[in-house]
Amino acid sequence: MCRFLAYRGEPVFMEDLVCAPCHSLIHQSLHAEEAKTGTNGDGFGVGWYAARPQPGLYRELRPAWSDENLRSICGQVRSGLFFAHVRAATGTATTRANCHPFAHGRWMFMHNGQVGGWPLVRRKVEQLIPDTLYDSRFGTTDSEAIFLAALADGLEEDPVGALARTLRRVKSMMDAAGVREALRFTAALTDGESVYAVRWACDAKPATLYYRETAEALLIVSEPLDRAQDGWVAVPRACALVARPGAALSVACMDAEMGRAAA
Amino acid sequence: MCRFLAYRGEPVFMEDLVCAPCHSLIHQSLHAEEAKTGTNGDGFGVGWYAARPQPGLYRELRPAWSDENLRSICGQVRSGLFFAHVRAATGTATTRANCHPFAHGRWMFMHNGQVGGWPLVRRKVEQLIPDTLYDSRFGTTDSEAIFLAALADGLEEDPVGALARTLRRVKSMMDAAGVREALRFTAALTDGESVYAVRWACDAKPATLYYRETAEALLIVSEPLDRAQDGWVAVPRACALVARPGAALSVACMDAEMGRAAA
Amino acid sequence: MCRFLAYRGEPVFMEDLVCAPCHSLIHQSLHAEEAKTGTNGDGFGVGWYAARPQPGLYRELRPAWSDENLRSICGQVRSGLFFAHVRAATGTATTRANCHPFAHGRWMFMHNGQVGGWPLVRRKVEQLIPDTLYDSRFGTTDSEAIFLAALADGLEEDPVGALARTLRRVKSMMDAAGVREALRFTAALTDGESVYAVRWACDAKPATLYYRETAEALLIVSEPLDRAQDGWVAVPRACALVARPGAALSVACMDAEMGRAAA
Amino acid sequence: MCRFLAYRGEPVFMEDLVCAPCHSLIHQSLHAEEAKTGTNGDGFGVGWYAARPQPGLYRELRPAWSDENLRSICGQVRSGLFFAHVRAATGTATTRANCHPFAHGRWMFMHNGQVGGWPLVRRKVEQLIPDTLYDSRFGTTDSEAIFLAALADGLEEDPVGALARTLRRVKSMMDAAGVREALRFTAALTDGESVYAVRWACDAKPATLYYRETAEALLIVSEPLDRAQDGWVAVPRACALVARPGAALSVACMDAEMGRAAA
Repeated sequence: MCRFLAYRGEPVFMEDLVCAPCHSLIHQSLHAEEAKTGTNGDGFGVGWYAARPQPGLYRELRPAWSDENLRSICGQVRSGLFFAHVRAATGTATTRANCHPFAHGRWMFMHNGQVGGWPLVRRKVEQLIPDTLYDSRFGTTDSEAIFLAALADGLEEDPVGALARTLRRVKSMMDAAGVREALRFTAALTDGESVYAVRWACDAKPATLYYRETAEALLIVSEPLDRAQDGWVAVPRACALVARPGAALSVACMDAEMGRAAA
Repeated sequence: MCRFLAYRGEPVFMEDLVCAPCHSLIHQSLHAEEAKTGTNGDGFGVGWYAARPQPGLYRELRPAWSDENLRSICGQVRSGLFFAHVRAATGTATTRANCHPFAHGRWMFMHNGQVGGWPLVRRKVEQLIPDTLYDSRFGTTDSEAIFLAALADGLEEDPVGALARTLRRVKSMMDAAGVREALRFTAALTDGESVYAVRWACDAKPATLYYRETAEALLIVSEPLDRAQDGWVAVPRACALVARPGAALSVACMDAEMGRAAA
Repeated sequence: MCRFLAYRGEPVFMEDLVCAPCHSLIHQSLHAEEAKTGTNGDGFGVGWYAARPQPGLYRELRPAWSDENLRSICGQVRSGLFFAHVRAATGTATTRANCHPFAHGRWMFMHNGQVGGWPLVRRKVEQLIPDTLYDSRFGTTDSEAIFLAALADGLEEDPVGALARTLRRVKSMMDAAGVREALRFTAALTDGESVYAVRWACDAKPATLYYRETAEALLIVSEPLDRAQDGWVAVPRACALVARPGAALSVACMDAEMGRAAA
Repeated sequence: MCRFLAYRGEPVFMEDLVCAPCHSLIHQSLHAEEAKTGTNGDGFGVGWYAARPQPGLYRELRPAWSDENLRSICGQVRSGLFFAHVRAATGTATTRANCHPFAHGRWMFMHNGQVGGWPLVRRKVEQLIPDTLYDSRFGTTDSEAIFLAALADGLEEDPVGALARTLRRVKSMMDAAGVREALRFTAALTDGESVYAVRWACDAKPATLYYRETAEALLIVSEPLDRAQDGWVAVPRACALVARPGAALSVACMDAEMGRAAA
């Protein structure tokens, strides 16, 4: 289980959200409140869009709370669309390549959740990654594998549908392998313009997800950054947020998507 | 604040104490119970005596809980005298050089505590380190500075007295600088044969310290490794344990030592 | 291309070979003489047998030449069988999991060479790893994949034959993928008792390999540790050294092994 | 000895100079040509001015040549004034705090050179740092100490003069300590507007320094980034370049400055 935030709006310094708030993401790296584990010290990452269509990435295997570079970069980079993530590993190694966000071309992805019985299905999930994308399999996490598999499942044309299709496939593999642990998938995704966020689990315990929308910005977080602020809305279970430029925020039903995927 | 353990007795694999117990030091790195901070993720170290008069050291700036090397080394090294430490930094950087234990020749030292107002007195405390030892000032912690200063204060001849003298000096410097925060010093020290452990603070809140003595071994810890085991004794406030080879464990009064230092 | 050494003989401190000689492995990490690249700064590792049937491992992604832990561990650990390796990456990331030696149960393996066109055949080579070993696929190197594939090819019963079989398979995959770069494989392998070393390439340029045998010890190295010493013998191209306890050192012909594998 | 570059001019992506040229700074980290050591693998750093008066810093203890974050950050950050440095340590540890550039407020500094007999004079040089700046003594290098000492010597008002005064003091300390090794100081300094670069040594072997000035930019480097390009000028021995906004590039004589300091 991990903690993350996604921001889209007027360009701001990343530190305004990653470092400054009383319950900032850096604070959550030591003191998460709504996660199974309070400590998210198994690496971190920030990814931002600024001067290029592709995001910049700074990922490190140290804890976020003591990283001087993270503070300096967040204090310099102003971006209208960025992701930040602090990791609590669920079985895979603490390496840079296992830190979120993951990027591929214009796309960027981060995840908080778990593929139950990962060692039992890892190989099958990796087989969902086509040869053309296998070069981008740098680490060993379930998260990166799902991202690459979803790219093959049409992520670029139909982001929410593709995630639904991939999750459905992964769940089938878990069932076939006799896995009883849950598949839980709370994630955010972007192509540098639209932002998508999903809160789904095969059981009744999807990881938390909130958003706050103002005239200037949309913020999507694992936990509110500041309880004193109004306006935090919990994303309902099995829902996907879709934030396209120039369109109102919409909510899709993941189970319906998964039904479509099954049809 | 940090967590540590010191072992002297029949040679055992370090993993028997560092990794295996239900509340092992590695477990305490994520879930300390008697410390101000539950997370001790700012690096770690092990130091052991085996084939040489000087200790071996493995210190790393990652958290202990995810370090594969630590587990492998602790699974291979059998020692009759070793220290292990997980760090929660109190203001100084997360670097290897700031990780405990610190070694100098045959001597090894580790600390859990804090010099209040360290930035205000750092320079003065460093001036206690003589030129001949200043080459061994590798990091920036209060702990390493006190160790080197105590070496100059006669640590090798009179370990507990030297620590008392150094603490007295440091406390005077803090007073002169108008520091109101406490000086707290819970530490362990060895020359590879005798083990010394101190629990002292200028206020009523010294960091915890326990020991357990059996026919085979003496174990000194920040927190008991297993609540189910009998025999854990809390070291009283302002006391020093002295464990010399072939002699019964004795307890000295630090305040008396500090009085002597003042005289 | 990398540099390595393997030692079997009277227990010695690892530092006697890894740190002390004028052209020690640490020296080679900065100043290799017989390699394509003089710098081997993409991580390192030592693996040793001492108190357990399984080897201990210390692997790190920093350069060997500046690692204090490496010096301390090599100064403490006395072993009658150990491997040490400094890495020059050929395309895969600088992570601990990509550092040699690799261990599996009692077995330990290290490699200096290259699978030409690795991105084109990686997936196929990984498919040689059976499900039961896929959990041990921690990194992304060609070297680790070949080790795991060779375990499936019977490494534990017939080490040299299994390596020959696996190399033959990998070369076929390279041919099928139209790879024109060479397959070069200079490696060492042990189960904690016997030591095997191979120098093979599909072209005329296998990486160098030398050995020196005395009454007390067998030393196998990428480059002699000290030109002033007599007794270094270059392993001929396409040959495998086999050093079984209580038996004379023997040399096998890899091409004959590969012919057998083909038959 | 190290390698560095300083850029001031039209904003460009840092990668255009740090990563892209045939003999880029990243290339120099493995293959420096005009340095005593060809490998500069003991950490690196970039510092840039963009959105704030203070520079951003990314410093890491790994080698530059394999750092994915460095490439990503240099591909995203566009700056009109930045420094980049690859380190070859001369005795002090490989830590982030020992990596250049060093920043203090608006000022940024990097160095290639050596204080001969550093362990003998370290303490005295550190005593040049006033109490108000001692909090910023994070590492153990001669370079950082000289920067902080020069700040106390008036760096912000008279940069070249202050460096001359500090170098003079340091040389006196070396003489008093009987040091026979040289003091060599090739460095760059900026306040975010003006750039100063110095090439000085107490003997005839100052580290190399070149510059290239065009209508759009000033580039100052340890080694030319591309031999095919015209316009590289070697900075003469004992000279300081001064590049103030809106003024022509000027060259000052360090020995004259040091004479003034002595007067």
